[in-house]
Amino acid sequence: MTQFDSRNISMMMDLYEMTMANGYFVNQREPHRVVFDVFYRKNPDQGGYAVFAGLEQVVEYLENLHFERADIDYFRSLNLFSDDFLRYLEDFRFTGDLYAFPEGTVMYPNEPVMTVVAPPIDAQLVETAILTQVNHQSLIATKTSRIVRAAQGRAVSDFGARRAHNLDAAVYGARAAYIGGASGTATVMAGQKFGIPVSGTMAHSWVMYFKDEYEAFRRYAEAYPDNVVLLVDTYDVLHSGVPHAIRVAKDVLEPAGRRLKGVRLDSGDLAYLSKKVRKMLDDAGLEDCQIIVSNSLDEYTITSILNQGGRIDSFGVGERLITAKSDPVFGAVYKMAAVEENGSFVPRIKVSETLEKITNPGLKQVYRVLSDCGQAVADLITGAQEEVDLTVPYRYVDPEKPWKNRYFEHCTARKLQKLIVKDGKRVAPAPSLEEIRAYVKRQLDTEIWPEEQRFENPHKHYLDMSPAYYEMKMNLLDEARNL
Amino acid sequence: MTQFDSRNISMMMDLYEMTMANGYFVNQREPHRVVFDVFYRKNPDQGGYAVFAGLEQVVEYLENLHFERADIDYFRSLNLFSDDFLRYLEDFRFTGDLYAFPEGTVMYPNEPVMTVVAPPIDAQLVETAILTQVNHQSLIATKTSRIVRAAQGRAVSDFGARRAHNLDAAVYGARAAYIGGASGTATVMAGQKFGIPVSGTMAHSWVMYFKDEYEAFRRYAEAYPDNVVLLVDTYDVLHSGVPHAIRVAKDVLEPAGRRLKGVRLDSGDLAYLSKKVRKMLDDAGLEDCQIIVSNSLDEYTITSILNQGGRIDSFGVGERLITAKSDPVFGAVYKMAAVEENGSFVPRIKVSETLEKITNPGLKQVYRVLSDCGQAVADLITGAQEEVDLTVPYRYVDPEKPWKNRYFEHCTARKLQKLIVKDGKRVAPAPSLEEIRAYVKRQLDTEIWPEEQRFENPHKHYLDMSPAYYEMKMNLLDEARNL
Repeated sequence: MTQFDSRNISMMMDLYEMTMANGYFVNQREPHRVVFDVFYRKNPDQGGYAVFAGLEQVVEYLENLHFERADIDYFRSLNLFSDDFLRYLEDFRFTGDLYAFPEGTVMYPNEPVMTVVAPPIDAQLVETAILTQVNHQSLIATKTSRIVRAAQGRAVSDFGARRAHNLDAAVYGARAAYIGGASGTATVMAGQKFGIPVSGTMAHSWVMYFKDEYEAFRRYAEAYPDNVVLLVDTYDVLHSGVPHAIRVAKDVLEPAGRRLKGVRLDSGDLAYLSKKVRKMLDDAGLEDCQIIVSNSLDEYTITSILNQGGRIDSFGVGERLITAKSDPVFGAVYKMAAVEENGSFVPRIKVSETLEKITNPGLKQVYRVLSDCGQAVADLITGAQEEVDLTVPYRYVDPEKPWKNRYFEHCTARKLQKLIVKDGKRVAPAPSLEEIRAYVKRQLDTEIWPEEQRFENPHKHYLDMSPAYYEMKMNLLDEARNL
Repeated sequence: MTQFDSRNISMMMDLYEMTMANGYFVNQREPHRVVFDVFYRKNPDQGGYAVFAGLEQVVEYLENLHFERADIDYFRSLNLFSDDFLRYLEDFRFTGDLYAFPEGTVMYPNEPVMTVVAPPIDAQLVETAILTQVNHQSLIATKTSRIVRAAQGRAVSDFGARRAHNLDAAVYGARAAYIGGASGTATVMAGQKFGIPVSGTMAHSWVMYFKDEYEAFRRYAEAYPDNVVLLVDTYDVLHSGVPHAIRVAKDVLEPAGRRLKGVRLDSGDLAYLSKKVRKMLDDAGLEDCQIIVSNSLDEYTITSILNQGGRIDSFGVGERLITAKSDPVFGAVYKMAAVEENGSFVPRIKVSETLEKITNPGLKQVYRVLSDCGQAVADLITGAQEEVDLTVPYRYVDPEKPWKNRYFEHCTARKLQKLIVKDGKRVAPAPSLEEIRAYVKRQLDTEIWPEEQRFENPHKHYLDMSPAYYEMKMNLLDEARNL
């Protein structure tokens, strides 16, 4: 099997999912379901929020999950599983329900962005495939939204494929970057697959291939007269690259009625060079020629370059975007929240040895609470069956200061989880990539406090609880203490 | 097209490769070839070496590179390319040669680990696909070799799939981790695809699913009596998890003539807890029960836990291995080194604005120079045609101290690059994954100085040059100054 062949991504699992599934199979009892939540514990880069991405691929996976003969043969070869169970896998399909935030929702730690309600085997087998997809795409979408913010309206393009953690990371990373606000990608496979705008002009090799830099630039201008962006740092930006670019603009393009679209810098001090280059271009009457820069950029270097007056029109961002270098692990987890007993869901809690690893138990709802001017003031967790009436003051518990009496007043609330997959089939329409991208931008522009989008020590979004939900959790913790 | 379908990974490229290829096509001249080197500039984690991985996938890609009608239609839709060029792509196959270090070779900065010799279009189109694969797998192989070293002979298993940057990162990451010395993986798809040993037992969900922890443990022991590893931190390691595990060992396993194989800790202070747990197990006569730990481990935490006397038999390493968290970018680049003119290869150099971005020009050879006790004392770059005779003292240039007169004496040398692909077809046999893994281990155990494998401020491997090669490079730099 080569990298070109079809692959059954149903095999994307940790082995323990299969040993547990076989165990559930052996210990079968009357049909019942379990509840798993997907949530994460910490925003990347000590930021104030994250962007939820990857849902579309999760739905595709759940709808197509199945095992082929070769897969079952492989499982058999491990000598771990009963024949009955292996036979059961032959016709296995995911039969559960998936609830999720709409893709692109701004999300916060410890709230269930996805909930799987399914028979134990179904729910267990999908753990890793869901997490890998959501962790990766949310990581890159979040990172990109930070970089785009730093660029203050300038275009940010994904140049990262070569430093991505293999092919999927480049392709789904480009998708996530687009969701997070990138204006396009250099990755052809992502452009083809998702319709993301692609861009690209030349590498240093083009310049080195020809006898001299001027000839390389001239040949490029002749081949692509409408889209001439010249890479000017192969030999010497200020003494060779830019003068040659200006000469091409004057001698090749202008006589043909064309303009030099841009120059690109890929090394050196980008703040210093961009100012010098801007002046050279302006002095030559090329005020409309854009300056595009690349070279190990991220939200921190971009902020710093712009603070120093860098004259930059567009950023090509590679390795630090596509790997989320400064914090490359998005830690969403998949934890059991409830088990159905006699038709009702009995909450389960994990206590663990580490305070932040305690889970939020039970089947629940998450609301985004909005002030009367439409800003998100908090998220609220309640039991699944609770009514939330915000036409009157609504008492809630801040779990970090539970002794305080707090009320939402003059607020509205939006239920964040929607039913996406029912009995294994998609029941909600799939939004387009453009719609998801616009939804992210709308939230960040209008709903989410700028204070939460700050890079340094951002405001921490409140995750509040209904009094009934908080009491249930505390009781469960009390019980666990006596286990 | 879903994630399950076959994918033409030939489309894994940056758009600029295609704009340049079209440009080369338009500027066609008599058939000739160009030379590109793959090299990197900095060892990850400020280490002393890296492990070269991903070659097998590169060869597979080169042998299968082609464009399908849908791909060409996509390119046409971009309105960038000439019809002649698009027609040319229909029958395009990679016709060049690939030279490379054997997969698994310990490598160092600035030496050409791969060299592509091919017509300009062929050479240009493969840039990103080669880099992505080599960067990703070398990153993870290198990281894993560091973690394995820290574990001092204890098993290290890859648990990282859920935090990998999408599916390929999990699967090819598991392959690279195995090359780097991991003893196995939890990722089923990697086990199936590459025959890597897989392991896995239970998650917290198994424990939470049953009425109490003891029942969960007992059910697992009944299902897998020969392979009982119990996760003991769902509620309280010392007061609940381990006592329940011991009870299962005594009441369920021992009467059936079985032993408790292990317990796993996934939270809390692993040094402290492992010592306490070891004592509890030993006091219960379970001296053979292993302690397996996981939870955000890497070479630094493992070193620190072992320094504090942690009693650990085996490490499950997840997110920090599969993302190489502390330094997640492997920066191999693909740079033009020469262009064929009238049948001979004329060297090209890139100067750039950043000192470390200057390239090593020309078609060349790399040798690993070994002392008479078999230790690698340096690597040596020479021109492609130079003879290296080490039966007599061999004068070389250390490019960082070129004024010194230095000689290799009583040394032997091994040519590192081999011809792997000739005229687009594999000509060297593919080693098995086990062979690659053994080769890495052999080098690290016997050839590579321990001083280069240290985590803190390791010895820097020398990359020397033949006097003739050094002189050629200096002359080229002089010329570039006057461009």
